[in-house]
Amino acid sequence: MLNQSTALDQMFQALADPSRRVMVERLCRGPASVSELARPLAMSLPAVVQHLQVLEASGLVRSEKIGRVRTCHVESKALRLAEQWINERRLLWERRLDRLGRFLAENPD
Amino acid sequence: MLNQSTALDQMFQALADPSRRVMVERLCRGPASVSELARPLAMSLPAVVQHLQVLEASGLVRSEKIGRVRTCHVESKALRLAEQWINERRLLWERRLDRLGRFLAENPD
Repeated sequence: MLNQSTALDQMFQALADPSRRVMVERLCRGPASVSELARPLAMSLPAVVQHLQVLEASGLVRSEKIGRVRTCHVESKALRLAEQWINERRLLWERRLDRLGRFLAENPD
Repeated sequence: MLNQSTALDQMFQALADPSRRVMVERLCRGPASVSELARPLAMSLPAVVQHLQVLEASGLVRSEKIGRVRTCHVESKALRLAEQWINERRLLWERRLDRLGRFLAENPD
């Protein structure tokens, strides 16, 4: 199993590309085949497959081939891990602002 | 001004490195000098400065030099943009699950 830091590296890396974000957004609306994922993107099917591989390696997406069709799903747990990392940092920062506010209120001038 | 997609590219790219995440986490606790940022990291000061440049280009961090000391701050607005992108996708996905749940409840068997 990947440790959490490597998982975050791969997840943020996967999200750092606009086409991959379009693919994740599409999959958040429901499973899709590779050609459905390719439809809104101005790129070849092999290029879409390469992006899909990056998304699968990051754990954000999984796919399964049934017959001749590969169907892709979003992995919500992985998306939540990335969200949680950012959320915890924002809370740190907001707590610091609260402390600053209290300090300023208790120490006027 | 960067458009929002480019901003997200650069932000997720900036977060896709464990040392840069350590720097962001440190700055969420309050401003720090470059050498304070370097302290927990096993790397040279020039390497830290390079990471800092990636963070500044992404808009996540800004720094200002006063006298001989460069002080770095986190830009909470930028962090919020990344959080918001993920949060909106998760909501899309959860709404889909809700619709599925309702459909299954209304269509037993």
